[in-house]
Amino acid sequence: MEKETLNRQVILINRPAGIPQKKDFKIIESTMPMLAAGQIRVRNIYLSVEPAMRGWVSAVPNYSDPVALNSVMRAFAVGVVDESMHQKFKVGMRVAGLFGWQHYSVVDASDIEQVLDSDDMPISTALGVLGINGVTAHIGLLEVGQPKPGETVVVSTAAGAVGSCVGQIAKIKGCRTVGIAGGAAKVQMCMDMFGYDAAVDYKSEDFSNSLALACKDGIDIYFDNVAGRISDEVMKHLNIGARVVICGTASVASWNPHPMGPRIDRTLLVKRARMQGFLIFDHKDYYPTARRDLREWIRSGAIRYKEDILEGIEAAPDSIAGLYRGENIGKRLIKVLKD
Amino acid sequence: MEKETLNRQVILINRPAGIPQKKDFKIIESTMPMLAAGQIRVRNIYLSVEPAMRGWVSAVPNYSDPVALNSVMRAFAVGVVDESMHQKFKVGMRVAGLFGWQHYSVVDASDIEQVLDSDDMPISTALGVLGINGVTAHIGLLEVGQPKPGETVVVSTAAGAVGSCVGQIAKIKGCRTVGIAGGAAKVQMCMDMFGYDAAVDYKSEDFSNSLALACKDGIDIYFDNVAGRISDEVMKHLNIGARVVICGTASVASWNPHPMGPRIDRTLLVKRARMQGFLIFDHKDYYPTARRDLREWIRSGAIRYKEDILEGIEAAPDSIAGLYRGENIGKRLIKVLKD
Repeated sequence: MEKETLNRQVILINRPAGIPQKKDFKIIESTMPMLAAGQIRVRNIYLSVEPAMRGWVSAVPNYSDPVALNSVMRAFAVGVVDESMHQKFKVGMRVAGLFGWQHYSVVDASDIEQVLDSDDMPISTALGVLGINGVTAHIGLLEVGQPKPGETVVVSTAAGAVGSCVGQIAKIKGCRTVGIAGGAAKVQMCMDMFGYDAAVDYKSEDFSNSLALACKDGIDIYFDNVAGRISDEVMKHLNIGARVVICGTASVASWNPHPMGPRIDRTLLVKRARMQGFLIFDHKDYYPTARRDLREWIRSGAIRYKEDILEGIEAAPDSIAGLYRGENIGKRLIKVLKD
Repeated sequence: MEKETLNRQVILINRPAGIPQKKDFKIIESTMPMLAAGQIRVRNIYLSVEPAMRGWVSAVPNYSDPVALNSVMRAFAVGVVDESMHQKFKVGMRVAGLFGWQHYSVVDASDIEQVLDSDDMPISTALGVLGINGVTAHIGLLEVGQPKPGETVVVSTAAGAVGSCVGQIAKIKGCRTVGIAGGAAKVQMCMDMFGYDAAVDYKSEDFSNSLALACKDGIDIYFDNVAGRISDEVMKHLNIGARVVICGTASVASWNPHPMGPRIDRTLLVKRARMQGFLIFDHKDYYPTARRDLREWIRSGAIRYKEDILEGIEAAPDSIAGLYRGENIGKRLIKVLKD
């Protein structure tokens, strides 16, 4: 195979007020990056697309500094070591990390989060069910939510990369699961593929009643990826001692100006309930534990996952907006270079 | 002393939509209640007045059934056993419990929460700093809030019966304390009597700036008794890992219709913060631990308390509204019969 001499990169050219759109990115060609001592060049195979990317490019204060304008879009990726000036990483090794939306990435050893060679799972899983999404579901549900057998767990974006995993882990832990998803196809997928006990379509006019019917015994854990009016309905059904796990706020288009909603203090007080935000990047020591469980559950068939794979880096600029349009089914990835 | 033959009782005659007013109660005379086997008659000395009484009489769902119309107002009280048909409780013993707003109460042994005879503290303290208020402060701050030395703790209604105790316990635990109170007199009291490191007047036009100045290093724990716009300002300054302890929602006049405010999901997510309601009635096993600590801290001078004592049962009907007008300084009690 002839060596490439050019790199292709997706750079952020505007700071969007809300959901990042195609026009906010530009694809550029640049010279192939050279290595300094200790560095590794990775040829990326899959790039990841996350709902959280909206926050990563926003000027609204977040948990990390925003991606700088005219720099490569921050993203998880998996790839193959293409050239190495680091003893530990050999050419041909498969690795995962925050390599960015580009064909080739020059990284330091500390940027490589995982070496995938001993894994019997497809490498794409390192970006989804064994990556940020599965680990988020594991920590958020088990550590923050602390489910007990017999409890009712409600999950928003229930068919999504994180949500589908939360629902299935909750089933493994003996909970009754209710999924909230948008549209008949995703609701069906919640039931058929992810084993929810009930699933409700938030786009249906009947959402409020359907949710109430699906949660007749109230809600003990709400694993929330959306906030906004969907969560407003869920909050009405909290049981005493309920836990609300805040993983994302995808349904709220913008936080500037700050959106208004029903005050929840009294509900949390009367129900002696807890609402808690978390961020997996705070829990890196916990990743191996989560991954070990997830691998076991995937092997046993207790956890199933779905991937939504776009082809070519040209798909990247519109891919986040597409997530928010709800067009993906499962974890969204972009296949950029051959394995 | 000639035996009384009549009882005086404060009964609830209207179900108020918001803060219970004088007109919502009526004082009646009734015949002295007689004892059945196993019962005890208590001659009440102090009746308690709580902000929580607003919830106790409201039709809006709460943590307990509302006080029934035309029945005696639910209240904590301390008194003396006046007559007894129970072996364990002798005439002359001092006792505390939910005896209601009345001169004489006939109760079962299970209604008596404490016998105060071995206590070296004034019996009125069983309704405040050693009663519901002090225990609420102890559990809420230490168990729910989990303060660490050096953290900044903000308390709303900082000069009140619960708040003043929270501020002082936080100091004992090595925290920096910032009180929020209404008016110059209460702010001064926060500084002079309760040892806050800073105190801010929420009635001042400069509240937002003053709070920001007082919390330059951000807020690690917010012990909230008020909700509403005061809390909206506090939430802007949460640190990563902050805990918001929801003890009350006194500043919100009514929860029907449900009031709107800034959505807090994103703040809790970005700050990996926790917001949690609690109710001391869930933690009765914990009361002795809390009281033991509180007694020790009162004796050592680490905790000071203030009482606001009204005279005579005639003061009861307007006493809750008075709390919400902010006219009390310290724990509000009603002295009804001689000790």
